[in-house]
Amino acid sequence: MPSLFTKIINGEIPCYKIAEDDNYFAFLDINPNAEGHTLCVPKQEVDKIMDMEEEAYMGLMAFSRKIGKAIEKAIPCKRVGMAVIGLEVPHVHVHLIPLQSMQNATFQHKVSLEQEEFEAIAKKIREALE
Amino acid sequence: MPSLFTKIINGEIPCYKIAEDDNYFAFLDINPNAEGHTLCVPKQEVDKIMDMEEEAYMGLMAFSRKIGKAIEKAIPCKRVGMAVIGLEVPHVHVHLIPLQSMQNATFQHKVSLEQEEFEAIAKKIREALE
Repeated sequence: MPSLFTKIINGEIPCYKIAEDDNYFAFLDINPNAEGHTLCVPKQEVDKIMDMEEEAYMGLMAFSRKIGKAIEKAIPCKRVGMAVIGLEVPHVHVHLIPLQSMQNATFQHKVSLEQEEFEAIAKKIREALE
Repeated sequence: MPSLFTKIINGEIPCYKIAEDDNYFAFLDINPNAEGHTLCVPKQEVDKIMDMEEEAYMGLMAFSRKIGKAIEKAIPCKRVGMAVIGLEVPHVHVHLIPLQSMQNATFQHKVSLEQEEFEAIAKKIREALE
């Protein structure tokens, strides 16, 4: 069974896409800790980050840095934080979260956004990538 | 003013050390989310992770992977998670956290340990590194 994220990558489930290359894919988290909360995912399904091959892991980290720098440019915040947890979807994903306070890093407080807001946020981040 | 972590790296403040190389240093978080919670820090002080030079950032991520794999071997857990927040100490640090549940990733629930327990945990992780 392909994971939820593989279905998103394959276009079977819609997403607010940020960027994609041969090996990695970035899109907005639809249950965000803060506006601009983005997930970076390897196209190859691996469950635990510490089980990734070194090359794939390093590639994911380089990809996440590129996306994180664009988020920091596009979204007003004190800094962009990172988190890898993975207890819910068994497919490695790096959370990139614009932080204003510790509250944005706890995963206990969620922000509710309309489709138009997600689209506007994704557009701003994509433009900051260019 | 050197950061708290620079003082730890320089030995001015004691720590439960895990590992060190030319550019990076790992030690136990003394206010841990879970037993085995470790911090990986670049010796060169930079405040925000997205401001690190690519080479230094990639080196930190490679170092964190090595330490994370050792923690996963040494400490019973479902997986080792990662987090970079940095709102408190302005010196980049990667949290490596053995996760049993989401609670270990929220930074809202802390574990209290005695000195002997910290020492035993650090020893186990160091041995798993070898």
